[in-house]
Amino acid sequence: MSALLEQLIDALRVLPGVGPKSAQRMAYHVLERERAGGQRLSEALAAAVEKIGHCERCRDFSETPVCATCASASRDAHLLCVVESPADRLAIEQATGYRGLYYVLQGRLSPLDGIGPRELGLDRLSERLAQGEVQELIIATNPTVEGEATAHYLAQLARQQRVRPSRLAHGVPLGGELEYVDRGTLSHAFGSRSEMVD
Amino acid sequence: MSALLEQLIDALRVLPGVGPKSAQRMAYHVLERERAGGQRLSEALAAAVEKIGHCERCRDFSETPVCATCASASRDAHLLCVVESPADRLAIEQATGYRGLYYVLQGRLSPLDGIGPRELGLDRLSERLAQGEVQELIIATNPTVEGEATAHYLAQLARQQRVRPSRLAHGVPLGGELEYVDRGTLSHAFGSRSEMVD
Ligand SMILES: [Zn+2]
Ligand SMILES: [Zn+2]
Repeated sequence: MSALLEQLIDALRVLPGVGPKSAQRMAYHVLERERAGGQRLSEALAAAVEKIGHCERCRDFSETPVCATCASASRDAHLLCVVESPADRLAIEQATGYRGLYYVLQGRLSPLDGIGPRELGLDRLSERLAQGEVQELIIATNPTVEGEATAHYLAQLARQQRVRPSRLAHGVPLGGELEYVDRGTLSHAFGSRSEMVD
Repeated sequence: MSALLEQLIDALRVLPGVGPKSAQRMAYHVLERERAGGQRLSEALAAAVEKIGHCERCRDFSETPVCATCASASRDAHLLCVVESPADRLAIEQATGYRGLYYVLQGRLSPLDGIGPRELGLDRLSERLAQGEVQELIIATNPTVEGEATAHYLAQLARQQRVRPSRLAHGVPLGGELEYVDRGTLSHAFGSRSEMVD
């Protein structure tokens, strides 16, 4: 087989869920029918990897120092919703009518993996809460063991700064990943979030 | 969402079997955990799309005018195996001990789609058979209606040039795609191919 083709098949396996057989199918498909699309994908990948960093306000992916959501004057800065990942943020944005701001942890507390408050930028979140603009911290971590532990830590952090912590209502299935919850369930859970009392 | 991220998600959908949700998952995965791999994939795609063409002898993908298999002195030039696609060629190469040469149609006869003998390079295949080196034309088109029609056309072509046509043995499931046949079945079918009489 062509060395370049072998390199392409190998490189495609960086994508999640792509094994040797589907990598091969993808490579052949691009070469047989989608060369222009393959070229476009190559350029989009290079640009994304090079230029997309993290928003300095919310830590979501952004190609500008401050992302469009954080820079928007039409979002309600009294509400701050904390999520684990950009995918969770997007799921909430798409499923609900939420017009506040976000904070993306890019992870969850996991002491065994060396992920503590500092790695999740919680020192900067705490400073932000101290500034007094945020009135409610909507905690939307995943309903997993580590997500729950992270939620409790965040609730304490909020209370220390006299910010009201709230949590998505039950309805999000236990042990599930927020990203894969259907829009209806997620929207309902978001709407009936409850204040966290210890 | 970042415009570059949106472009990446959109561009990923050029890959077969990748819908909006998995494109999104792939983009986030690359940005969160695999930036170096994403860069490598970008380069591999660009190189493949730009430099991989078709071997002028067998029409398989190749980055050189004549592919390594066709250029090899250790392959038996008396045997020529005709397949529909590069993936079929690879499946036979991996499953069997075949040491002859290949001819890749890059399609199958399909008059309704305007794909006739010329589009499959059968004029050049005929010239090659006329040169007298090939003794057996192993026809390994897919066992579909169009694949069978193509096989019959190829068998006639072979006989006209006094080349013996043969067909893979039954064992390849009818209506299936060669590419997805398990190695054992494919190897057996290849080994017990029969001469085409008719
Ligand atoms: Zn932001
Ligand atoms: Zn070749």
